[in-house]
Amino acid sequence: MKIRAGYVQLRPKFGKVKENIEKVKALLEPHEIHLVVLPELFTTGYAFLSREELEKYAEPLPGPTVEELCEFARRKNMYIAGGIAERDGDRIYNSSFLLGPNGYMGKYRKIHLFYEEKEIFDPGDLGFPVFETPDFKAGLLICFDWLFPEAARTIALKGAHIILHSANLVLPFCQDAMITRSIENRIFIITANRVGEEKRGDKEYAFTGMSQIVAPGGRLVLRDSPRREGAGFAKINLKEAEDKHITPENHIFEDRRREFYEL
Amino acid sequence: MKIRAGYVQLRPKFGKVKENIEKVKALLEPHEIHLVVLPELFTTGYAFLSREELEKYAEPLPGPTVEELCEFARRKNMYIAGGIAERDGDRIYNSSFLLGPNGYMGKYRKIHLFYEEKEIFDPGDLGFPVFETPDFKAGLLICFDWLFPEAARTIALKGAHIILHSANLVLPFCQDAMITRSIENRIFIITANRVGEEKRGDKEYAFTGMSQIVAPGGRLVLRDSPRREGAGFAKINLKEAEDKHITPENHIFEDRRREFYEL
Repeated sequence: MKIRAGYVQLRPKFGKVKENIEKVKALLEPHEIHLVVLPELFTTGYAFLSREELEKYAEPLPGPTVEELCEFARRKNMYIAGGIAERDGDRIYNSSFLLGPNGYMGKYRKIHLFYEEKEIFDPGDLGFPVFETPDFKAGLLICFDWLFPEAARTIALKGAHIILHSANLVLPFCQDAMITRSIENRIFIITANRVGEEKRGDKEYAFTGMSQIVAPGGRLVLRDSPRREGAGFAKINLKEAEDKHITPENHIFEDRRREFYEL
Repeated sequence: MKIRAGYVQLRPKFGKVKENIEKVKALLEPHEIHLVVLPELFTTGYAFLSREELEKYAEPLPGPTVEELCEFARRKNMYIAGGIAERDGDRIYNSSFLLGPNGYMGKYRKIHLFYEEKEIFDPGDLGFPVFETPDFKAGLLICFDWLFPEAARTIALKGAHIILHSANLVLPFCQDAMITRSIENRIFIITANRVGEEKRGDKEYAFTGMSQIVAPGGRLVLRDSPRREGAGFAKINLKEAEDKHITPENHIFEDRRREFYEL
């Protein structure tokens, strides 16, 4: 259960899908990492001007990006989670995938859309799946899902050791909030954020970087800079996430008193 | 809706009920504060050696402490929340009360008991009530309730402007976690913590102080020192808690997608 896990903090070039995927592979190639998280919409960038423009970049999931990364993951013996725009019939989702040495494992469609995403994406409809590998169980979240404690809670209650959080963060709160999420669920969380700015038409975004790895109990294992592009990783023991005691008498899940929660 | 609100950060003397109440009144007397929060178990201290010892100090709620503070609150035109050990028949609860210029308003019984409290207190059975004054709605939490996002969420969904959080904190996480609670619920939170140590028999506790006022969106209005005894307060506009938008398109409650939460 001890693995090297981390993220790629990326500065994608808008619309340059092949180039962005190549950059990710180049950043990961020198390292032995067993599990890596990539940012939200890492192949395309974020600032789509319209649904029509987004349609041109959305792809099936699984599709070409997953295929290409599966080959890389097989060779590197690596699990990869990352976000892309997914086309499914006439719907387009802000999605993320998990794939591993044995291929594609599954996807998540962003449940809580942020701000202008509501104008171009369809809201996720698959709930919060948890995927099982021989070594660990993992759930996926995307960016703004951080705000809703119910999202991380749902994944933790399903037994995940770790949340793979692909992000394009613009608000300053998430990184510290993920420490709280880790304390309240005693779970690992890797947030892969992007860096850089995007100015397109009337849209202007500045992304906050500071990708991070948090361990159960809120221990900040690693936090990156606000601007650097690169891979970050650390050795973590996922078994830690199985002990839900915060004191010998407090099991944080068994202590929940659902009969009094009005949610 | 603009009021002066705050806390008393207290170093209670164990078992000296009258003295502790007098200390609170002396600390508040010089100030005009409309709403004040006192720590958990502020009349008695925390380190009870046994259920039998606790029984000697537990009192009805409402009872003598509330009566005495009601008189003070009427004279000072003040709302006061604070924690005491409550006896009700053969049960003893770790409770808190809210009272105001017109008298006693209601109580809360701690839902999530911490560590050795489980050996001497009965778990709360009244849910998470929200109380209404002409100026604002308030919910009560006690100490370790901070860990469970469902507690603050329940109070916020019931329409409270502010959470009055009476604490005897020994873990270092709560103060920062309350910033997250305020962001995710866009609510005010006043945490009144105690300071000092208690060593009694085999029990030894060091309390972390740093009582604080957090405004919607996670703005830290005031955070006290880890050791000082005293009152802290600030002018806050409770109306801020009524706007649940984090962006023009994101109302944090309407954006919840309960059909996908498995809680």
